Amino acid sequence: MAQPHPLDQLRAEEILHAREAVLHAWPKALIQFRSIFLEEPTKSSLLPFLEAEHAGSLSKDTPRPPRLARVQYDVIQDGKFCGYTESVMDIDSKKEVKREAFDTSCQPYLTMEEMKQFFDHCLPSPLFQEAISQFKLPEGYEVELEPWPYGYSDPGEAPPRYIQGLCFAKDKRNGNMDSNHYSHPIPMFAVCDVYKREIVKIEKLATGGTADGLAYDTHQANAVDHCRPAEYVPELADVEYRTDIKPLNIIQPEGPSFKVSNESLVEWQKWRFRVGFNPREGVTLHDVHYDGRSVFFRLALSEMTVPYGDPRPPFHRKQAFDFGDGGAGRSANNLSLGCDCLGAIKYLSTFNTDFSGQPISAPNVVCIHEQDNGIGWKHTNFRTDRPVVTRYRELIIQYIITLGNYEYVFAYKFDQAGAISLEVRPTGVISVVNIDPGKTSPWGNVVSPGVLGQNHQHLFCLRVDPAIDGHKNTIFREESLPMAMDPATNPYGNAYKVVTEPVEVCSAFNASPFTNLVVKLSNTNVRNPISGKPVSYKFTPPATQLLLADPQSIMARRAKFTRHHVWVTSYRDGELYAAGDFTNQSNEERGGLADAAARNDSTVDSDVVLWSVFGFTHNPRVEDWPVMPVEKIELQFRPSDFFDRNPALDVPAVKNTTSVLVGDNSCCQSN
Amino acid sequence: MAQPHPLDQLRAEEILHAREAVLHAWPKALIQFRSIFLEEPTKSSLLPFLEAEHAGSLSKDTPRPPRLARVQYDVIQDGKFCGYTESVMDIDSKKEVKREAFDTSCQPYLTMEEMKQFFDHCLPSPLFQEAISQFKLPEGYEVELEPWPYGYSDPGEAPPRYIQGLCFAKDKRNGNMDSNHYSHPIPMFAVCDVYKREIVKIEKLATGGTADGLAYDTHQANAVDHCRPAEYVPELADVEYRTDIKPLNIIQPEGPSFKVSNESLVEWQKWRFRVGFNPREGVTLHDVHYDGRSVFFRLALSEMTVPYGDPRPPFHRKQAFDFGDGGAGRSANNLSLGCDCLGAIKYLSTFNTDFSGQPISAPNVVCIHEQDNGIGWKHTNFRTDRPVVTRYRELIIQYIITLGNYEYVFAYKFDQAGAISLEVRPTGVISVVNIDPGKTSPWGNVVSPGVLGQNHQHLFCLRVDPAIDGHKNTIFREESLPMAMDPATNPYGNAYKVVTEPVEVCSAFNASPFTNLVVKLSNTNVRNPISGKPVSYKFTPPATQLLLADPQSIMARRAKFTRHHVWVTSYRDGELYAAGDFTNQSNEERGGLADAAARNDSTVDSDVVLWSVFGFTHNPRVEDWPVMPVEKIELQFRPSDFFDRNPALDVPAVKNTTSVLVGDNSCCQSN
Repeated sequence: MAQPHPLDQLRAEEILHAREAVLHAWPKALIQFRSIFLEEPTKSSLLPFLEAEHAGSLSKDTPRPPRLARVQYDVIQDGKFCGYTESVMDIDSKKEVKREAFDTSCQPYLTMEEMKQFFDHCLPSPLFQEAISQFKLPEGYEVELEPWPYGYSDPGEAPPRYIQGLCFAKDKRNGNMDSNHYSHPIPMFAVCDVYKREIVKIEKLATGGTADGLAYDTHQANAVDHCRPAEYVPELADVEYRTDIKPLNIIQPEGPSFKVSNESLVEWQKWRFRVGFNPREGVTLHDVHYDGRSVFFRLALSEMTVPYGDPRPPFHRKQAFDFGDGGAGRSANNLSLGCDCLGAIKYLSTFNTDFSGQPISAPNVVCIHEQDNGIGWKHTNFRTDRPVVTRYRELIIQYIITLGNYEYVFAYKFDQAGAISLEVRPTGVISVVNIDPGKTSPWGNVVSPGVLGQNHQHLFCLRVDPAIDGHKNTIFREESLPMAMDPATNPYGNAYKVVTEPVEVCSAFNASPFTNLVVKLSNTNVRNPISGKPVSYKFTPPATQLLLADPQSIMARRAKFTRHHVWVTSYRDGELYAAGDFTNQSNEERGGLADAAARNDSTVDSDVVLWSVFGFTHNPRVEDWPVMPVEKIELQFRPSDFFDRNPALDVPAVKNTTSVLVGDNSCCQSN
Repeated sequence: MAQPHPLDQLRAEEILHAREAVLHAWPKALIQFRSIFLEEPTKSSLLPFLEAEHAGSLSKDTPRPPRLARVQYDVIQDGKFCGYTESVMDIDSKKEVKREAFDTSCQPYLTMEEMKQFFDHCLPSPLFQEAISQFKLPEGYEVELEPWPYGYSDPGEAPPRYIQGLCFAKDKRNGNMDSNHYSHPIPMFAVCDVYKREIVKIEKLATGGTADGLAYDTHQANAVDHCRPAEYVPELADVEYRTDIKPLNIIQPEGPSFKVSNESLVEWQKWRFRVGFNPREGVTLHDVHYDGRSVFFRLALSEMTVPYGDPRPPFHRKQAFDFGDGGAGRSANNLSLGCDCLGAIKYLSTFNTDFSGQPISAPNVVCIHEQDNGIGWKHTNFRTDRPVVTRYRELIIQYIITLGNYEYVFAYKFDQAGAISLEVRPTGVISVVNIDPGKTSPWGNVVSPGVLGQNHQHLFCLRVDPAIDGHKNTIFREESLPMAMDPATNPYGNAYKVVTEPVEVCSAFNASPFTNLVVKLSNTNVRNPISGKPVSYKFTPPATQLLLADPQSIMARRAKFTRHHVWVTSYRDGELYAAGDFTNQSNEERGGLADAAARNDSTVDSDVVLWSVFGFTHNPRVEDWPVMPVEKIELQFRPSDFFDRNPALDVPAVKNTTSVLVGDNSCCQSN
């Protein structure tokens, strides 16, 4: 097997080498592993290699960045937790290159193992059993738990490590483990101390409505009696399925137009890039080139936070950082052919890590496929009625994550006109709590009897490391502004001006749709031969609502990245996470975008990073129940004077010969 | 042949009946016809019929609205134009129901015949020939003309009827009529008086750059010498076409899932609606029901305006109203199988009208097809790893219009979760003028040598006549607003409030993305059985830039509808056009949204109409040349507490069995 590319994920044997090296470094402790994954090379060590690769001059003598693994683990001594630690291990030498131990103010993400242990600690707990016994569940229903991050630790104390568990009643009468328990929310949370391995607190939940105030708590024994089943798995659902959806098949008789080789290299329609995958961010895109020209060094979703807007304690602790508290890669679905995407599909896989440090295969976490997205460009000469029309073919790099009740479909889309988009589709089950019969609430919508879908927000951050024709780039803000009518400059009043200004130092600003704010990622050292302007990619920051929580609240302080839509920072190796490295139980964003922006470094003609913050305010509809139809949001990076004409002009106007006419008054083309 | 449905387009024989009736009414005049098309029934005459239809109680005795034609024509007497007239003719009785004659302050749209006559008048004109002879065109190039609406008439005068013609040099050396003349803009406009049938004015155009001011005019004989060919038709284009796009076929072996019957009735996945088509708006959607429940009475694009931001006269006259000045229906492309859409396609056709009033068949102006749009909803139970995932199937009603250089792809999309979207894709050739060698301009971008792509805006208006569970509806504005931290009401600062208020009288307001403004179309007389809220559809007004022209400018005064993103008006029969009935050469919007909003009628629990204004500010990129890749904008109307759960819950999670795996290191699935 060939030597891995520096951006390839770790192979199983590399994970094992890193594991062994860590065990070797800790001869006297018990090591509970959390993750072992590629420590990406520093940019300065990687660039010479990539340059040689693109120049076609790679050889055995080309200096390679060292192959490194980041290993995240807990150290246990004498049966007690002694600290969370991260080591960077050199795979080849099995040497520890770096080690950092963290105190409990830095809580790592929750692992699936910890979630599972929560079940083990909770169910036998006397405290929990006493609390749950106050509720009389319907015949055949049993309690089901939903572990969540705890939100934040109270400031000023060395915090315990907590998991909070939402409680539901699940219909076990027919033994189907996929019965939808979310339809029967029990009004209590159980809080588990992970180190102590015990339930330490029961939180009783308000079940009142508009008139009841924050402290209201009926805590009726029959709290779920007015709830109704809301099954979505076909063998349980009270649904008459549609029978009139005829098959629609995507057939690629000559196979796909893309090529995936050497584990991570994707080539399609003049695009060439590497696909990485790690436990926290999921898909990472690297070294993105179009027709031999560099466009992006790295693209990845950095973070998201989902705060809930219900003021009744303890709902203020419902604020997940799904990347930092859980991890998009660790939560990625194993995708199936013919379900998550159609056509000719290439899957990429990864490894998760178990507590013992063994690599656990996680197959098909990424799917790569093509898609027809309608018309790409068209013009008809009205004099001759001659149309020239091309299709809009896209390459999709998709992954889907499940975080408890909720799903996100993330898709990077490459097109033939030099654009890259990120599409985000939230779906899954909304987070719900109990509400008394007949009541309504200002904090959400009753989506099923007894079930309040709480108002919340989803705020995402995409990290964009541009490399527009090289690594010295400048970010520009460009606005289209009105001009007053004036005899000398604007005699008829139709003129407007386009004002462009560079972002000179690390800083942040907001979307501004009403001035048509466009952000340009430019290389001022390379001019477009036609327009004379710097070669650029542009994007329009989505004009979406920012965080609604009070700026002084802990929810806002731990997510300072949600203060602005666009952040511009100077590049630093390893600075990848918008809300900082540690979000779980954080009470202040540290090492995130607010700190990076405060550096005040120059960002002109330099190695600069752009961050886009966007989101949804989600006040649930009844239609979002029990599983919500996807919402969609899309960001697009389009070339802007990067090429010397429409780069898709060379897409041939080929007529698809398999399309067929539907006859009059017919519902069927084939008969 | 069955009797037409009241919403069916006119049949050929109906057009002829209307034509004959008009000729009969004007025995002594020469009638030059412009358009003959369905005069839609008044709402009060149509509703009883539709109610009977939905109740299944249609019979021969059901009162039918009279079948009417609107006939638009010029009256010519003694060889001279005597006035533009509109008559409404009863098809069955051949009686004239209504006649309205307009003075020249009401200029109708330009017909294709008038455009063609412009060529006939212009080329032999001594004025034109003298002006054009001052330019020395390259060997083998000939002048090509591009007729445009004239913009506005100067206020206060009874205006002539004008067409302005942009001038280009076309490469005729190889006799290919599809050579792209836009690459060689000649700096002059020719203005034609349509009534006089002669060129009455030549406008010389500035060709300067940033330093040259507004009055600059080199008018060099060799003005196009520095221009370069920019061919896009394959037999001429200097393009090496891609050979690595493998076919992607949409195969529907059992045919489509939709049914089109009785000319206009479309049924698909619980949706049932009528598709109309008229010369001005193109596609109109009527009587839209989902699962037997009324959602919309009528949906159609109402208007668009495209003002240019270059202050140098006469560019202030470049402001097209593509629906009112030209007509989306009249400009609709005749679509081809396998080019404009893939899969199993049903086309709808229409008739245009020639000068003599004969119906001219315009085939395939609308295509109807299905599309797979990725994942519809998904949830994975992390306890069992059991996913349930459905596809997102859409029904597309698409039409494409060509207005001189430019194209728009309009698509209404219906989905299985009760949502309707409108997607707009601009494409085609941007409008360009000449610029001197080596110069750049604040008013646009040099997209090819000698070619300035001028900055401009596209502002659209969609008219939405809701019928949410009936015809008495109310429009609500709903915003999500922050709440200050407060011990009693918001102790941790995470709360936010959702504030809903009805629109009480005819009025207008703007998009407000940062308060998450959502507009709800509600029926307050019908409550959702789960949430208790009024049944509603909602939409988020796109936060796009409004008109940049000075509010006092004529460009702004003739497009007052662009002042706001959302307008709410009381229903009136025939009030369909955002900028008023007459836009061509208008200098003030009359009978448009500003007038309707000024009525101050109550809009609560009444027959109310919603108008959505949205657009693009388009500062051209070099990549938009010579034919631009599509841009995209989408509006979506989603049910909001209209249903009692996700209406797509009954979409079965069927695995598509024709998808295939791509092997490792392979570029081809099939071998």
